[in-house]
Amino acid sequence: MRRVFLFLAAVCWIGSTAFGADDPLPSWNDGPNKAAIVAFVEKVTTEGSPDFVPPAERIATFDNDGTLWCEHPMYTQLAFALDRVQALAPEHPEWKTKQPFQAVLDNDLAAIGDAGVKGMVELVTATHAGMITAQFEAIVADWFKTARHPRFKRPYNELVYQPMLELLAYLRAGGFKTYIVSGGGVDFMRPITKRAYGIPREQVIGSTIKTAFEMRDGKPVIMRLPELDFIDDKTGKPINIEKIIGKRPIAAFGNSAGDREMLEWTGAGAGARLMMLVFHDDAQREYAYGPANGLADTKFGTFPESLMNEAQAKGWVVTSMKNDWKRVFAFDK
Amino acid sequence: MRRVFLFLAAVCWIGSTAFGADDPLPSWNDGPNKAAIVAFVEKVTTEGSPDFVPPAERIATFDNDGTLWCEHPMYTQLAFALDRVQALAPEHPEWKTKQPFQAVLDNDLAAIGDAGVKGMVELVTATHAGMITAQFEAIVADWFKTARHPRFKRPYNELVYQPMLELLAYLRAGGFKTYIVSGGGVDFMRPITKRAYGIPREQVIGSTIKTAFEMRDGKPVIMRLPELDFIDDKTGKPINIEKIIGKRPIAAFGNSAGDREMLEWTGAGAGARLMMLVFHDDAQREYAYGPANGLADTKFGTFPESLMNEAQAKGWVVTSMKNDWKRVFAFDK
Repeated sequence: MRRVFLFLAAVCWIGSTAFGADDPLPSWNDGPNKAAIVAFVEKVTTEGSPDFVPPAERIATFDNDGTLWCEHPMYTQLAFALDRVQALAPEHPEWKTKQPFQAVLDNDLAAIGDAGVKGMVELVTATHAGMITAQFEAIVADWFKTARHPRFKRPYNELVYQPMLELLAYLRAGGFKTYIVSGGGVDFMRPITKRAYGIPREQVIGSTIKTAFEMRDGKPVIMRLPELDFIDDKTGKPINIEKIIGKRPIAAFGNSAGDREMLEWTGAGAGARLMMLVFHDDAQREYAYGPANGLADTKFGTFPESLMNEAQAKGWVVTSMKNDWKRVFAFDK
Repeated sequence: MRRVFLFLAAVCWIGSTAFGADDPLPSWNDGPNKAAIVAFVEKVTTEGSPDFVPPAERIATFDNDGTLWCEHPMYTQLAFALDRVQALAPEHPEWKTKQPFQAVLDNDLAAIGDAGVKGMVELVTATHAGMITAQFEAIVADWFKTARHPRFKRPYNELVYQPMLELLAYLRAGGFKTYIVSGGGVDFMRPITKRAYGIPREQVIGSTIKTAFEMRDGKPVIMRLPELDFIDDKTGKPINIEKIIGKRPIAAFGNSAGDREMLEWTGAGAGARLMMLVFHDDAQREYAYGPANGLADTKFGTFPESLMNEAQAKGWVVTSMKNDWKRVFAFDK
């Protein structure tokens, strides 16, 4: 009996070295990228370390599309907007001959993509407004229950990256406050971020449309207006971080050109910093796109060579989904 | 010796009844308003209570000027802006003949008041912009060190209401997340809110001017532009609460018509709610203003009769500084 115990203890001891049983990032392969993350967290959270950062300053910001969840074959919110165009089309006969709505009704994905950001904004303002905030939230929540990703045949909110969930939990265990700072609509993300990522509604920053406070039958409501308020992308990310958080992050995570300025802003602060880009090079388990893969760039999560060059020059961690991640989704073997 | 001990124990016991030593609000006089606050906090924080609210939903929002600190003889930020006009005047000879700047240089307080919100916005955009965020913050922090309130001869950040500090601490001890939601500029408040109120920068919501992300010598900066972004007052308060917090408060505290919509929005949610207005009726220890005192209304913290009528009709707590507060400032006897 004692020998069995000693044997089990030895197995446990071996298992716990090089993380093992205590590994906070079990879905990450050992290597320089995982080591860089762990080294950063340890030095900023260890009292007495020259790089120690007080808990109140441990702000970490995460892009959402392509960084925390899948953004292909199109942004999840665009899939939602297309479904809303179909649902609302009977009330809008004019859409049959008006772009980008006509392209949606014709299922012409290339034309939708060609409509670019301007087209997406038109689709979003037309389908996300004209109702009060509570109604919109109910529509979003319902959609997540029924809509399925075309390739993975699962609810979109299950297509979150398991290694990034572990990273979020690891940072929070180290006293970090984790924020989403996404080009996506804040009201589209909030119904699912707590359950999907453990991130409460007040730590979700995103693009917004204008709203108005109105009285309806003596009861106040907030009405969603078909007018853009702010696009939380590119320079909009550090601008919103400064406006809403008022503290410079010490860690920032993205995956595309839309995150460049957020990482630059984070990196320009004094003291230890961690900037990371998720690189989509895993066509088998998820998607591969972008010129740094020798592939064509994409309209959803563009990653130009200039971004890779900047990441290398500035020592940003570029995480390869293919090489750094043991699994991509929780449902992967 | 034992008798002395028993005597002391008896004194302590008597002192602790009806709050006494355990009173979380020692600067509040006993009465229906204090009782309403305590009853609300107890019912929403007591597990098993029909009015129990989970900690994540315990959001409390506070106006700043006139609710947490003194707003007379003018808003603190306006006093700052006037000092900045004087400091910058040598660089702006055109101000000598241009309103509202001329009124400031002539120390014509009535004309400054007459310039209204439009005039204040002009003064703020002219004096709060044209520099990067870090520079502005340093100017604000320096100003708080040297500027003195004309009546109390103390730094403005000491003119915070002691009963409200106790209320903030009491709510936080009950698991509430306390926010400032003020018409004042967010970047004017953030340098002092942590020390003055225990409220971290990311829980300060206020008015904003536009900013731009720029590269200077290869280093990113956020430049303050002389253009209004959003006025966080009246309907702007619930709009910003919904946009930035994304949760409806269960308690809201204000003191003027600028807080009406925030209290209406808070009160329209389901479940237990606490809405409170601080009423300035104490000319001796602070100031008395507003028609409900039988006095003229004021440009700073206007409290029309319609607001008093709405407060009474909806059961909002109207706290009398004179009758409900044992002391106003920490330095009061």
